[in-house]
This record gives sequence, structure tokens and C-alpha cells, in this order.
Amino acid sequence: MKHEVILVIGGARSGKSTWAEQLACAAGERRYYIATCPVLDAEMADRVARHRRLRAGANWTTIEEQTELENALERAAAAGAESILVDCLTLWINNLLFHDPDLDEAGMARRAESLAACLQRIPGTTVLVINEVGLGLVPESPLARRFRDLSGRCAQILAAAADRVYLTVAGIAQKIK
Amino acid sequence: MKHEVILVIGGARSGKSTWAEQLACAAGERRYYIATCPVLDAEMADRVARHRRLRAGANWTTIEEQTELENALERAAAAGAESILVDCLTLWINNLLFHDPDLDEAGMARRAESLAACLQRIPGTTVLVINEVGLGLVPESPLARRFRDLSGRCAQILAAAADRVYLTVAGIAQKIK
Amino acid sequence: MKHEVILVIGGARSGKSTWAEQLACAAGERRYYIATCPVLDAEMADRVARHRRLRAGANWTTIEEQTELENALERAAAAGAESILVDCLTLWINNLLFHDPDLDEAGMARRAESLAACLQRIPGTTVLVINEVGLGLVPESPLARRFRDLSGRCAQILAAAADRVYLTVAGIAQKIK
Repeated sequence: MKHEVILVIGGARSGKSTWAEQLACAAGERRYYIATCPVLDAEMADRVARHRRLRAGANWTTIEEQTELENALERAAAAGAESILVDCLTLWINNLLFHDPDLDEAGMARRAESLAACLQRIPGTTVLVINEVGLGLVPESPLARRFRDLSGRCAQILAAAADRVYLTVAGIAQKIK
Repeated sequence: MKHEVILVIGGARSGKSTWAEQLACAAGERRYYIATCPVLDAEMADRVARHRRLRAGANWTTIEEQTELENALERAAAAGAESILVDCLTLWINNLLFHDPDLDEAGMARRAESLAACLQRIPGTTVLVINEVGLGLVPESPLARRFRDLSGRCAQILAAAADRVYLTVAGIAQKIK
Repeated sequence: MKHEVILVIGGARSGKSTWAEQLACAAGERRYYIATCPVLDAEMADRVARHRRLRAGANWTTIEEQTELENALERAAAAGAESILVDCLTLWINNLLFHDPDLDEAGMARRAESLAACLQRIPGTTVLVINEVGLGLVPESPLARRFRDLSGRCAQILAAAADRVYLTVAGIAQKIK
């Protein structure tokens, strides 16, 4: 069982999750899916159902965990996971901000560093998905600016910790590390 | 006459159209330009006029078609087009949404698949331009989110059907497929 | 002393400045930092202070110049700069627009071409940082659309003039020229 950490970053509907699932499927048979998406409305329920359908039949165990990712990773590892897919860090950051509206970049960095350290201890392959959200205009709302900064900081820390990083555009994954 | 489908994706003012025109010019002498831009206001009229000036003298026949791209492609092919430039799919999606505000991702996928199938039947080279719009924050408006999802879905389907895909950044075209 | 012009383009918190500083540090010992950031509020003051701390101890002379970049570059060159970092062109464009709300794309192109010509005359290495802001949805505000167009135009002109261009994503710099 190969230990590897892979980060997949990309825009909305860029094929991030599909690519990440392919990588995770290739990495092993005992697959765990850590879902960070809170189901708050019909739109989100639709997305979750769509993703569930895509994974159906491919032997996934789903763990729903909105904030305590390290705990979820350790549970999956203890259950013998060969391959873990975390989809996605963007919603994780969103959930952290929802629970702690004062979360700043230093706090985010601590959480991301701690997650990166945990990933080194997890046997097998972990694939993490995150949205790139920083390539538009500066948002007017201070909260949106902060979210964007937290997301970029988190992506940098996990990319530094990852063995491989892919950028997805139009369904095409480019290896950038 | 070489059959080829090329997709050029990039941000606003990233040099998409200029690069696509170079590719289309290199592909043949009998050039057709399929313009999807509706001229709704002075700003759009300016953009259209600017693009027309850029193409002036380079032997283009322009077909204006806002929604029925397959029909426009077939007309160009019947007229003996060696090279067809479609600029751009983003406005095509915008026009489809304007005519059918309920257009959803499944409907978009059907239109994009049908376009992709048509492209395989067109002799010569077709170059398609599309904006990447999914790399900013999640938009607040449900319609904007839907547009972004439709655009990403369309880009994935056409990229899968294309022989070559380029991503333009700061006027530089990177071949990503 | 090697003459070189390098452009670093990327999103918010993508590691642009860090990468640009590494390039500039590697290029020479006599380092000039041209800061274009106006300090208008506490958030900006924080960012400026953070960037100053990052550069502390690395032998930088700071020149604050919000609009007259060529003048600042010539002052740095006259003082014997081996390496100049301009951080960033996005705020420069913002400052130009603030002083001339009617600045259009043709005016921006003239300023950018003039800057590019100046860069060819400056001995040593100049590293320029700019944000990619064109990969989100079309902004609703006409001023935001214009800013996005000016930024893209400026990036294209400087990228064409640069010897090297890097795109940063999640702290990873990809050489795209």
C-alpha cells in the first residue's frame, strides 16, 4: 500500500472530482470518501445525490464530516482504508468559517498545517479536492475577501505537503507538481 | 484539407480570440467566422467592431448565428470552408439561456454533445473559443451559478471532443491537450 | 549583471509575491522594491506590514510609487539596483484608474507599452507581479468590467515584453514562457 498525498485544484465544473475519484480508485480497493458538504438546501442535496450516483458501484464507504477532517481520516485509516478521497477542502473552510466567523489567516494556516501533518501519518493514498477561487476580481465583501485568502493559504499549505498536485481545466488535469 | 477540432479556453482579455484566429488562419485560406455575439448595446457593438477590424483583410466570411451553431457550421462547410472559427461558445450559452431560462445542465450537455458530434462531420478545421469563468468565488445569484455550471459542463464536453486544447493566460497559449 | 524582465501572474494568495521575491533575491544583492500599494485602510496597512516583514533582513530598499513606475525604475537603476521587484501592477492599474476614471484600453495599452520600453533600458533584473483577474464571471459593474479589461491588456503587453513568465497556482510557479 503506497503512501501518497495528492491535491486536485480547479474551478467550478472543471472536472476536479471526477479526476480525483479516478486517482483514488486507482490507488486501492478499500475506498473511503470523506464528504464535507453540509446539506443545507435543495441545490446542495442535488449535488450530493449526483456525486453519490457517480460513486455508486465503485466500492466506497462514505464518512460525512464537516469540520474534524483529521478525526475522519484517522477513522478511515483505522478501518483499513487503502485510498481516501476528501471532497472538498473548500466546503471544509466554509464550514470552519461558519462555526468561527473570526477565523483569520493565521488560524487557517494552523488548521491546514495540522491537517498536512496528519496526512503524513495516514497509510495509503489520500486525494484532496479544493476549488481555486482567487482568479476573479477582488470581491467587495470583506468576508468574501477573507474566504478567498483563507482558501488560497490552505491550498498553498496542502500543495506544499502533497506529493502530486493537479490543476483541472475543462476536464483536463495538468500535473503542476 | 485536414480535419481538426481545436478548443481555446481562457479568461477575459487573455488573448483567446487572437490565438484562435492565428490557428484558424494557419489552417486554410477559405475562412468562415461564426459570430455568436448579439449586439445589444454600445459596449457590445464596440467589441464586435474591434474584432471585425482585427480580422479585416484576412479573407473571412462572417456568419452571424446566436443559437443554431450546427446549422451555421453546416452552411460554412457547404460553402467550402477550410477553416471555421466559432467565437465564442460563452455567448452561445448565454443566448441559449436567454431563449430558455430553464436550461439545466442535462439540457446543456445534450446541446454540447450534439455540437461535438456535428464537429466530427465538418471537413476542415474548426476552432472554438470559450471563456473559463469558474475560477472566482461562488456567485451569489442562482442564475450566475447555473451559467457557470453550464459553461464548465460545455467546456468539458467540447474539450473531450477536441484534438487540441489551449489555455490562454496573458496572451500566452499553453497546450493542455 | 544580467538584464532580464520576468512577469509573475497569479490569483489571490497563490504565492505570486513569494515566488517573485525569490526570483528577485536570486538575481542580485542590491535589491529595490517598488511598492505600488496605497495605504487607504487598516486591511491594506496589514498587508503592507506583512509584506515588509517577509522582506526584512533580505537587504531591500523600498520605493513607494503609486503611478509613475518608470520614474521609480529609473531612480532604482541610477542607485545601482541589480534586482528590482515591482509589486504589483494590479494596484498600479487601480491607482491609474483612480486618478483618471476615463482611462480606456487604448490609454492603458500606451502606458503598458511605455513601461515595457522602459524595462528594456533598465540594467539588471526586473520582476513584475500582476494578478490574473479575468477567470471569473463577467462582473455586473461597467467599471469592474473595464478594470478587468485594462488588467488583461496590461498583462498581455508585459508578458510579450518579458523574457520569462510564470503562472502561480497554490504556491506552485509554472513557467509558461
